Amino acid sequence: MSMLKMSNAFIRTLREDPADAEVDSHKLLVRAGYIRRVSPGIYTWLPLGLKVLRKVEAIVRAEMDRAGAQEVLLPALLPREPYEVTNRWEEYGANLFRLQDRRDNDYLLAPTHEEMFTLAVKDMYSSYRDLPTTLYQIQTKYRDEARPRAGLIRTREFLMKDAYSFDIDDAGLNKSYETMRLAYQNIFSRLGLPYAICAATSGAMGGSRSEEFLFPCDIGEDTFVSSPGGYTANTEAVTTPTPEPQDFTQVSAPQVYATPEATTIDALIAVTNEVLPRADRAWEAKDTLKNVVLALMQPDGKREVIVVGIPGDREIDLKRLEANLAPAEVEMATAEDLQKYPRLIPGYIGPDILGVNADPDCECECKKQDTIRYYVDAHIAVGSSWISGANEYEKHVANLVYGRDFKADGVLEAVQVRAGDPAPDGSGELTLERGIEIGHIFQLGRKYAQALDLKVLDQNGKSVVVTMGSYGIGVSRILAALAELNHDEKGLLWTPELAPAQVYVIAAGKGEEIAEKATEISTELDALGVEVILDERPKVSVGVKFADYELLGIPYAIVVGRGLKDGLVEIRNRASGEVTEVPVADVVSTLHQLLA
Amino acid sequence: MSMLKMSNAFIRTLREDPADAEVDSHKLLVRAGYIRRVSPGIYTWLPLGLKVLRKVEAIVRAEMDRAGAQEVLLPALLPREPYEVTNRWEEYGANLFRLQDRRDNDYLLAPTHEEMFTLAVKDMYSSYRDLPTTLYQIQTKYRDEARPRAGLIRTREFLMKDAYSFDIDDAGLNKSYETMRLAYQNIFSRLGLPYAICAATSGAMGGSRSEEFLFPCDIGEDTFVSSPGGYTANTEAVTTPTPEPQDFTQVSAPQVYATPEATTIDALIAVTNEVLPRADRAWEAKDTLKNVVLALMQPDGKREVIVVGIPGDREIDLKRLEANLAPAEVEMATAEDLQKYPRLIPGYIGPDILGVNADPDCECECKKQDTIRYYVDAHIAVGSSWISGANEYEKHVANLVYGRDFKADGVLEAVQVRAGDPAPDGSGELTLERGIEIGHIFQLGRKYAQALDLKVLDQNGKSVVVTMGSYGIGVSRILAALAELNHDEKGLLWTPELAPAQVYVIAAGKGEEIAEKATEISTELDALGVEVILDERPKVSVGVKFADYELLGIPYAIVVGRGLKDGLVEIRNRASGEVTEVPVADVVSTLHQLLA
Repeated sequence: MSMLKMSNAFIRTLREDPADAEVDSHKLLVRAGYIRRVSPGIYTWLPLGLKVLRKVEAIVRAEMDRAGAQEVLLPALLPREPYEVTNRWEEYGANLFRLQDRRDNDYLLAPTHEEMFTLAVKDMYSSYRDLPTTLYQIQTKYRDEARPRAGLIRTREFLMKDAYSFDIDDAGLNKSYETMRLAYQNIFSRLGLPYAICAATSGAMGGSRSEEFLFPCDIGEDTFVSSPGGYTANTEAVTTPTPEPQDFTQVSAPQVYATPEATTIDALIAVTNEVLPRADRAWEAKDTLKNVVLALMQPDGKREVIVVGIPGDREIDLKRLEANLAPAEVEMATAEDLQKYPRLIPGYIGPDILGVNADPDCECECKKQDTIRYYVDAHIAVGSSWISGANEYEKHVANLVYGRDFKADGVLEAVQVRAGDPAPDGSGELTLERGIEIGHIFQLGRKYAQALDLKVLDQNGKSVVVTMGSYGIGVSRILAALAELNHDEKGLLWTPELAPAQVYVIAAGKGEEIAEKATEISTELDALGVEVILDERPKVSVGVKFADYELLGIPYAIVVGRGLKDGLVEIRNRASGEVTEVPVADVVSTLHQLLA
Repeated sequence: MSMLKMSNAFIRTLREDPADAEVDSHKLLVRAGYIRRVSPGIYTWLPLGLKVLRKVEAIVRAEMDRAGAQEVLLPALLPREPYEVTNRWEEYGANLFRLQDRRDNDYLLAPTHEEMFTLAVKDMYSSYRDLPTTLYQIQTKYRDEARPRAGLIRTREFLMKDAYSFDIDDAGLNKSYETMRLAYQNIFSRLGLPYAICAATSGAMGGSRSEEFLFPCDIGEDTFVSSPGGYTANTEAVTTPTPEPQDFTQVSAPQVYATPEATTIDALIAVTNEVLPRADRAWEAKDTLKNVVLALMQPDGKREVIVVGIPGDREIDLKRLEANLAPAEVEMATAEDLQKYPRLIPGYIGPDILGVNADPDCECECKKQDTIRYYVDAHIAVGSSWISGANEYEKHVANLVYGRDFKADGVLEAVQVRAGDPAPDGSGELTLERGIEIGHIFQLGRKYAQALDLKVLDQNGKSVVVTMGSYGIGVSRILAALAELNHDEKGLLWTPELAPAQVYVIAAGKGEEIAEKATEISTELDALGVEVILDERPKVSVGVKFADYELLGIPYAIVVGRGLKDGLVEIRNRASGEVTEVPVADVVSTLHQLLA
């Protein structure tokens, strides 16, 4: 064992929060001397941080091994060609770190390894008898995130456990997937991390079934929904139940009316209630059709302007849209985009000049330009009636019926999911929570094996394409999740299993006798295999030693102080705050039992 | 424990050597399924290779911890700025992988971490009381080698243990250096790797004292010398004792003579012996002065042509020259270089138009061009007499005395060291051996701390620059060294401590009883903590199983075969070839004892 001594350990605690830290885990891990930032989203692991990281890694490894997966280690620096074959060299866009070697060959820093594992299995295996197999690695990955944030939660260099399963058929893939799903449940249980398993979209990975393990946490970047019936999903993956068609037989013909200065939805509603009051109730924001102009960026760099009609009381959700439109990226249209289409009059856009609604034979100048595809949000019911822009300045149109007066080129999940929205499982209303993605499991299917020609001979000697799964855990991110979960106003709080040390021994007071006894107790614990931090700093006050112990989050402290003259020392429990005086002769055995 | 079974282990052995493998370690590690090449100098670690790698890593870690070093983990992807400050962004030349992020900021993949450790200590420490400290990491490094070769020996992505010591003064640095030197001796002893500690040059690292740990091995890239007095050095670092000045009072004046068709040294000697026979003995190659044209490439890209005069019976050693001229790189001059200097007539170059010898006032066309610096090799004694080119086509000059008839701009260690050369310690003649560099320790001194402003307050409250050491071990390369050391014609040979498994259990023969007993023995060994590979492949011949066991290099085999009906199984010792029959009931305890 190697006991840490505060007098020479490479640890420096900070009393103040670092300026760039927004979330508790980031603040505390930096203040307690676990990590230090080197560059945006790139961190150094200091001794305490590295010890916890290795413990998390060991739990992940043990459970992967127990599930029958075999560990390998692939390079991080990879040649372009395999990623070219699967099109991900391009699809990854700006998130991929690309570089060239001295011979001008293209390389990348791998953000994930589907291609290379596919090729490794292709290199080694050739028969159905070799399958199923699941391989994994715990390895440093790279993503050039647009916005690295929240300390270890979103970084550009990070430690990941990625696993890949290979099966001869769909039944095999389902079984491999379930095995990994169970291993993940075991891993997060052992780590003491609560999780929700949420249906997810597969993004740039391709494939079919996909679930995320989200750690519920207010500072999480992901929002997920739950239904009374037990359905859970990342909001990006929520499917809106198709709304019932509405009866529009009583709805009169569309009526264009003047809406001077109606530059907001509220103003539009006010004008409409005045000019065209309805008999049953007042017009509301939800009666208006907001036609939002967006720009799609294809991986090949092509930019396309589209319009999406959404209910006026809802907001666009770019992440959900993007999940629907992958591999394209989506953003709000810019002024430059709008300049190309003078027929789009901001605030007064209506569907009739867009997509399928546009009259290709019309001679009018404004419609001669290329078609702009028009989509509607999944909440728009067939037969529903809307107030929309009339494509003229300060003019709107009412009684515009979807299916009667306008159509769409397609339906998209375009708006933010709201608490109270109907659940797709029909069990009632959705509730919303935020979470941090700590794991993700995918059924990739045959996408990569097909592209890279991974085939084996089946029982009949026929060559068949292998089907794959892909399973990731953000090992370094888990530390942030654990720190978010386990801390109080004084600092971090680790369980004995994950703590960088189980016991912090404080020499509390002057005098050689105290320092010697503290050292003796530490040495005895160390010999028993207990990880110890000994705080014997001679010129540091007891107050600072206590504060450091609490900030570091070590589960137990032994305080050797004034009581020593009466043969007593204190044991402190960091989590409960409990303080117990024990005879100095018993302290080692007492602590050893507490930790057993 | 997790026992490997050959029926589903991610292992495939090859009977043929891979086409690109030149050395035994490379051939065997690929054939035995330990590693696979992904790209030039970039490898995947398969399950067996990874297990050995982790064991090597564990030994390195244990000895570093025991020496009081503290483990951290720094990123591989680093910002340019600190390397700019120390000038290494440029000095590393083409060996550095450089890249840009999405904001066009420059990054590098670290080949070594002096800058970042200096900054880490600067960030955390401020007082002499914090020192000494030695920090280390075991981390993936990157070098864009011009010629990746020999499997794991020279790669572009590799695992390295790098350590850095920080001291307040030179005495402290010496002590830290000795501690690491001892730790390295312990590491290589535990690994069972013979080593020579050789004086070395410090190359692009800067600093003063520097030693390499070389594993003596015919396929090594380094050559090192030993003297009867115990001096050992990398040939690059060998210093030639200054030769005694020679008495030239009897040497007549230089004499130019015609040397038609003397395009080789042999032809030149023949002509000279004919035209200008000497009284005492015949002229020999060692009497000629070979003036070699070289090109220096400075880190900033500047290219300079120089000429070095060496004895005609010796060969240029570009690596020694480069060590002398760091950070410049050196190569033989190209035809393009020579075109720029028409006064250099290949085969007939003499010193009188070069460097200090050139007459700056000379009006002759050939000398008006810019000066070419002229060096002599360290073996050229003051007063020695030479046959040299006369700077005219088919003309040479004899009796050209160094110090009388020509001078030099400097003296360089330019030629290959030869067995029999005088040792610098004066103890006799040098002997030569080849070796693989497995470790390197440096006294960096204050170069990095000065450049990056790492200062601490000393006991008098005065701010002083910290002095540093740097200590590297090529962890992945050690595997290659171990494989070079330990193999025979049948395959690899591991010690039980480093083997991926200690025992290979072979089900040798058909029948359920044999397979069941093999599995039972394996399970029992596994439960005792012995690492086992069970070869229960039903459709594989006994011969193939034996061949795989031998190729993999597992220390012991247990063969469950025909003898089982008489209650006997075989234990085989891979290294000695010894075969022992033991009662099946005793095999587990016998093996457990053998491994104890």
